[in-house]
Amino acid sequence: MARIAVTDGMANDAVELLKQAGHEVVLGFIEPELLSNGALKDFDAIVVRSATKLPAATIAASGDRLAVIGRAGVGVDNIDIGAAATAGIPVVNAPRASTQSVVELTIGHLLASLRHIPRADRGLRNGKWEKKIMKGTELAGKNLGLIGFGRIAQGVGAIAQALGMTVHTFDPYLPPKVAKAQNTTLHKKVETLFSNCTHISIHCNLNDETHHLVNAERMALMPGRSNDGINCGNHIVNCARGGIIDETALLDALQSGQVASAALDVFEIEPVPSDSSLLQHEHFHGTPHIGAATMEAQARVGRDIAHAIMTVLNGGVCETTVNAHLLK
Amino acid sequence: MARIAVTDGMANDAVELLKQAGHEVVLGFIEPELLSNGALKDFDAIVVRSATKLPAATIAASGDRLAVIGRAGVGVDNIDIGAAATAGIPVVNAPRASTQSVVELTIGHLLASLRHIPRADRGLRNGKWEKKIMKGTELAGKNLGLIGFGRIAQGVGAIAQALGMTVHTFDPYLPPKVAKAQNTTLHKKVETLFSNCTHISIHCNLNDETHHLVNAERMALMPGRSNDGINCGNHIVNCARGGIIDETALLDALQSGQVASAALDVFEIEPVPSDSSLLQHEHFHGTPHIGAATMEAQARVGRDIAHAIMTVLNGGVCETTVNAHLLK
Repeated sequence: MARIAVTDGMANDAVELLKQAGHEVVLGFIEPELLSNGALKDFDAIVVRSATKLPAATIAASGDRLAVIGRAGVGVDNIDIGAAATAGIPVVNAPRASTQSVVELTIGHLLASLRHIPRADRGLRNGKWEKKIMKGTELAGKNLGLIGFGRIAQGVGAIAQALGMTVHTFDPYLPPKVAKAQNTTLHKKVETLFSNCTHISIHCNLNDETHHLVNAERMALMPGRSNDGINCGNHIVNCARGGIIDETALLDALQSGQVASAALDVFEIEPVPSDSSLLQHEHFHGTPHIGAATMEAQARVGRDIAHAIMTVLNGGVCETTVNAHLLK
Repeated sequence: MARIAVTDGMANDAVELLKQAGHEVVLGFIEPELLSNGALKDFDAIVVRSATKLPAATIAASGDRLAVIGRAGVGVDNIDIGAAATAGIPVVNAPRASTQSVVELTIGHLLASLRHIPRADRGLRNGKWEKKIMKGTELAGKNLGLIGFGRIAQGVGAIAQALGMTVHTFDPYLPPKVAKAQNTTLHKKVETLFSNCTHISIHCNLNDETHHLVNAERMALMPGRSNDGINCGNHIVNCARGGIIDETALLDALQSGQVASAALDVFEIEPVPSDSSLLQHEHFHGTPHIGAATMEAQARVGRDIAHAIMTVLNGGVCETTVNAHLLK
């Protein structure tokens, strides 16, 4: 009988799963001040998404009872996993649950950019019938560069190949045979990925190495013209994490035309400040961090994280423990 | 040395191809009144897209010199091909040139609907960060119904299958083995296609049989809940021809919630009247008939139609003659 705080929501079925196992589930966002003042002292577990931040100080203030932190999703940049390990707390996530949803959103953003879907819809709603300026280009025949080649990128790559794209990858942590098995060209330097690809999609974690990995210098390397001779321009999609793209440099590149379109699901600051010039650019479109926001992904995430939490509470070791290497 | 009117535009490379073969190319839209008053009397050939209409009266008024009508695209509902045949004029089109572009736009519209891409972008531009109401569903695991299963639909079906969808088809003119070879379920009645599919995409011609084929009764058959148990709602995409959907019934179905989203590239009246209530519906998005509006498709269409026109002018028979069965 554990007490579990669920601060950023969880699928109903998953809450039921925990309750049916005899646990008490306390649903509701907890303000940062309360968290850092020990609001978690009476809990055995906490399940968060991305809204709740668990920095070292908050974890230190949580006392001895807290036995497991569940991230209902993939990225754990909102949790100090090292501090959790120091406190002996495993951080578990649900890395497979949202893969298909993010793959589909990424392909959707790519096609929406290339065919001007949100821009064309905006025109129609404003009473305009702008066929000529909505001329687009095909994905077929173009080089897609994937930064990071984990599960999501592999899914995106497979669909992109079905659409006739050639896939290039950059992932210094990936065994080269994985890239080869998927018929992609693995680059040792991210610079050659940029210089070979008119289309770039980001699928890596946010960390010190990847912060502003997409910057002015690298975007300047993108060729604008594809191997099939089409002046398709350069296109960037990010459904991974904000902060990997330098948004100031991206806006500059959109304004100069070096980047023809940008589609972002994630931003350096979320929610995006409403006075952001990027949001208003004609060749930008975006979504409010909804990569995993599908009924299917949320059901799977909830189920996966409920099982992960209960594994730890029952004294077991969960295979999706992201700070396993730091725990003693 | 023929004189060729190109009234709705043509890729530069294709115009050059005609000129280099010694032909005179006259570029520019010709008003309907002028066409019906014999403006084509001094031409051997005319190349149109969809804006120029060639009804029987216009063809009759064109005199004896006109030897071939080229449709730089696929659909010939703007041309009276029977009247052309009576006048001994072959109507040639370019049916393969835009296939990939329409396939990509269709998948783009499907994903844009399911993940609320234009709606979410509208929210961001209005300073809103509406994560919760933008929850979507995956295409994976759902039944996609394709009305018409020609080249474009087959391409859409292949990508949909790569995304994990199950494909159902309705095409009374298709040899059943084609549907089977693509691992789709062929329906004899369109009604069972509707009752089995939460997602419908239209890929047939517009004619008396298909006019308002998507009507209130058939939309009412759509199940709303998919086989994987997800209440994904019903979704309709049309990148084929306006008029196949009864737009009044579609708006009603959007308002009642029976249809959760509609994405249209084609409309009953084009350009769409700007006071259309459909255009302003929260769960509608559209594009201004840009299925073939890509650099690649226009280059291929131009090249294909230039070759088709020259084949006829040189006394040959073009294999893409849409009124071959009517010509004596």
